[in-house]
Amino acid sequence: MKTEKISELTTNRLSIYLRCLNELSAEGAKTISSGRLAKRFHLNSAQIRKDLACFGEFGVRGVGYYIADLKEQITKILGLDHKHRVAIIGAGRLGMALTDYYGFTQTNFEVAALFDADEEKIGSKVGKVKVFDLKNFERVIRKEDIDVAVIAVPAQFAQSVLETVAKSGIKAVMNFAPTPLRFADDIKVKTIDLTISLESLSYFLAKPQND
Amino acid sequence: MKTEKISELTTNRLSIYLRCLNELSAEGAKTISSGRLAKRFHLNSAQIRKDLACFGEFGVRGVGYYIADLKEQITKILGLDHKHRVAIIGAGRLGMALTDYYGFTQTNFEVAALFDADEEKIGSKVGKVKVFDLKNFERVIRKEDIDVAVIAVPAQFAQSVLETVAKSGIKAVMNFAPTPLRFADDIKVKTIDLTISLESLSYFLAKPQND
Repeated sequence: MKTEKISELTTNRLSIYLRCLNELSAEGAKTISSGRLAKRFHLNSAQIRKDLACFGEFGVRGVGYYIADLKEQITKILGLDHKHRVAIIGAGRLGMALTDYYGFTQTNFEVAALFDADEEKIGSKVGKVKVFDLKNFERVIRKEDIDVAVIAVPAQFAQSVLETVAKSGIKAVMNFAPTPLRFADDIKVKTIDLTISLESLSYFLAKPQND
Repeated sequence: MKTEKISELTTNRLSIYLRCLNELSAEGAKTISSGRLAKRFHLNSAQIRKDLACFGEFGVRGVGYYIADLKEQITKILGLDHKHRVAIIGAGRLGMALTDYYGFTQTNFEVAALFDADEEKIGSKVGKVKVFDLKNFERVIRKEDIDVAVIAVPAQFAQSVLETVAKSGIKAVMNFAPTPLRFADDIKVKTIDLTISLESLSYFLAKPQND
């Protein structure tokens, strides 16, 4: 594998390819060309070839890609060949919705713990997942072997929660609080800001059509 | 305003600039240069100038941008100078979490109706928002003057829900079902796929450090 910097847009596309390959595989297909893969899933075949070329030589002339093999390779590249254990901080509606989000339940991400500061919530369960006291964050994530944190608290608490998360040694964070957060270079924080997505829909509605 | 195609990355950045300007404005600032704006919010000053240049001449030499004026312009560009009324389809945990998502409540997006097919949910309320029968979608969205739909149903129902939405004349859709959807060119569907975001975090954890 080349070690050059891979952009997040590339890894996002790898995720999509993986999902497409899973679907083909479930249908019993063994091989597929970049052209047919692109046509079937409305992708760009040159982009597929370019993205995969960042990681090695996967295609076979006259055959295309061996689906099982390519799935395995992408799974490894994305680090999905082992389970990730996830902590969700904030046991409000959003945190609870995320706990049983199909995306988590159907992939290699397993929600292992919820955290909250509200004493009424601490000790309760959402499905099989227990709500712990945020004060015990570091101890619980070590015990539960958690490597991904999801911040689902109101914006004004997000920075302080992120500091607790960073202190515990977790390096991968998904943040739902629509607020700019400060953090060190060795931690990856991905903010999911639904407001920005909404505003891009608003732009689409506002702009003159046919441009 | 130029009518050339503006990418979603540009409109996403405009959303971010708007949020930054709101913060500056709340602090009482009147003007700001692209350099100071970039420094304060960890943005790129050349990118700010380039993005804004797509829409007109907003900067004043030796002054920078007049904050109130630039806020007003970006608000107009993004179509945020009037309210959008939102329907959420799916009154499960995710739909309910979105109903009181601060992003909706603090912007120009107002959740006006929830829809579900489950008779036990129909007629109930989430906060002030009523759950309607999905069968009556078109009638309710006309009556409630709704222009944005959010799909928060399990993946296997998403395509059929999208068809109901499209038939009603709604042109802007935010989709939370992690599944490829088919739709016509005159409708904008923005899929928020948390699995893809998770997998990009996984890649970050898997890759060799310092590359």
